[in-house]
Amino acid sequence: MKVTVKANTNIALVKYWGKKDENLKIPLNNSISMTLDKLYTITTSDIFDNDHDQVIFNNKDASEISKNKIIKFVDLFRNEYKRKEKLIIKTENNFPTASGLASSASGFAALAKSINEVFELNLSDIELSKYARIGSGSACRSIYGGFVEWQKGNRDNGEDSYAIQLVKENYWDIRMMVVIIDDKQKDKSSTDGMKETVETSPFYPAWLDTIENDLNNVRQGILDKDLEKVGITMEHNCLKMHSTMFTTRPAIIYWKPATLAVINKVYELRKLGVECYFTIDAGPNVKILYDQNNSEKIKKEIMSVSDITNLIECKVGSSALII
Amino acid sequence: MKVTVKANTNIALVKYWGKKDENLKIPLNNSISMTLDKLYTITTSDIFDNDHDQVIFNNKDASEISKNKIIKFVDLFRNEYKRKEKLIIKTENNFPTASGLASSASGFAALAKSINEVFELNLSDIELSKYARIGSGSACRSIYGGFVEWQKGNRDNGEDSYAIQLVKENYWDIRMMVVIIDDKQKDKSSTDGMKETVETSPFYPAWLDTIENDLNNVRQGILDKDLEKVGITMEHNCLKMHSTMFTTRPAIIYWKPATLAVINKVYELRKLGVECYFTIDAGPNVKILYDQNNSEKIKKEIMSVSDITNLIECKVGSSALII
Repeated sequence: MKVTVKANTNIALVKYWGKKDENLKIPLNNSISMTLDKLYTITTSDIFDNDHDQVIFNNKDASEISKNKIIKFVDLFRNEYKRKEKLIIKTENNFPTASGLASSASGFAALAKSINEVFELNLSDIELSKYARIGSGSACRSIYGGFVEWQKGNRDNGEDSYAIQLVKENYWDIRMMVVIIDDKQKDKSSTDGMKETVETSPFYPAWLDTIENDLNNVRQGILDKDLEKVGITMEHNCLKMHSTMFTTRPAIIYWKPATLAVINKVYELRKLGVECYFTIDAGPNVKILYDQNNSEKIKKEIMSVSDITNLIECKVGSSALII
Repeated sequence: MKVTVKANTNIALVKYWGKKDENLKIPLNNSISMTLDKLYTITTSDIFDNDHDQVIFNNKDASEISKNKIIKFVDLFRNEYKRKEKLIIKTENNFPTASGLASSASGFAALAKSINEVFELNLSDIELSKYARIGSGSACRSIYGGFVEWQKGNRDNGEDSYAIQLVKENYWDIRMMVVIIDDKQKDKSSTDGMKETVETSPFYPAWLDTIENDLNNVRQGILDKDLEKVGITMEHNCLKMHSTMFTTRPAIIYWKPATLAVINKVYELRKLGVECYFTIDAGPNVKILYDQNNSEKIKKEIMSVSDITNLIECKVGSSALII
């Protein structure tokens, strides 16, 4: 019965920021992501012959909060499919949790797929994507490899809010460097942050009004393997998202000094003819998109920025898989 | 005939960003500023018995660009008041030029007032404010001491676009610390920056839509000597302005890593109960507003931030004066 699943994290090129429904995690806008091959969660689920579930998180008993989140998630499946078995779940990230590196994305994608297997539910990727979404919004994108779009959908019950694969991982051989500035847990969760932004930023309506244009550009840019088109739009979209955060009351500022140092380094590299583009999620770390031909130059330059903890160069990753 | 004028610079608490008329420098929104006592321009004008004007800028012959700007400004008065005399103008800033420290604000205020004196024009402060505005927008606020509002006006010819004093300098004894991170000339002038923002930032309309609320809060906060009200609104307004810059295409980012380090230090100080608030103009330097009781604590903490070049603690400054 025991099944082990590996799911990769994903980084949005067009960001998700703001929910229409807090419980069902239905977003206010579509988003497009790239799945990364080097940051992932491995989750093993097995039937547990006991009266309670057991959750092991990074080789330790999970905290009450994590455990409750995970059990609540398993209950979605137990309730829907009339299952009573308790589970023992061991889950592990190969990178820091809750630091803006999308650990909950790979986490809930891996969990959804492992539950599907251990309960032998035979759910489609679209169904798994919807479940993963309820676990943690952007997790719905980590069911797939390659480049992925999360369609917000129109229905109140979330039945049409799931991700689809735009192109497979071998369609476009591009690199994303994850520049780790700080791997501590962030002060404000994305969930709280986006709620406050939607409620108080005077710039949030313009964020929604202009998202369709960003989505069209990035979708077309991916199909055309047009790095400039994807990159320029990705940066603008990232700066728009952070600007809605900065103008939230009170302000939400996830950037650290080194975040700006890396942004400035990316601009410098571009001036020197080394094509690369940045994006930043709800945390201080920066992700850089570029062609593998420029890999060595970019690594060398980014390493020279002070206060960089680590660099991880990723290729486009695969779908969540049983291993 | 020779007359020497000292004009203080000013820092906006509610910012000016975007022009309705590029030549007449009519703004798209009102702004409110505090005049600072420690950063100023001293300008001496005298009739020059010659066929050309002479301009000495910081003890050197002015560059062609500066000289032409200044002569063009003097011509406004010569044309309007039928004067033919050439002038010799010596002007000096006690702080770096064009680095986001509002050197052109004190510069054109001092120049307007010195021309008024040397030509014996007897113009009112309102008239001088309008002339200073044509020299460099925010200079219209540096005619006055204390706290000042620049009323954008409604007329196309700029006749009702000038500053008025809200309260005199001795009304509210508050401090502003100018934290200098970089005193080099900025890459992009405010003039170019604001033009690009108005044309391309999708957030600019919301900037204008929400300015009235900021103005009301800061105006009332000054009258009530309510530091929290002024400070919270000032920070939000500053972050809104920079967010319109970040979302300009291509993006305009005046911040440096140390800018964020100072922002974070201000937040830390507030958490520790030391009340202080930041604002940032079109450059990397940060200005901090606080009560003099907290002066020593704030100085000590801000000095501990790396990459700080200099700190200048200012009181509320006086109007432009003949000295």
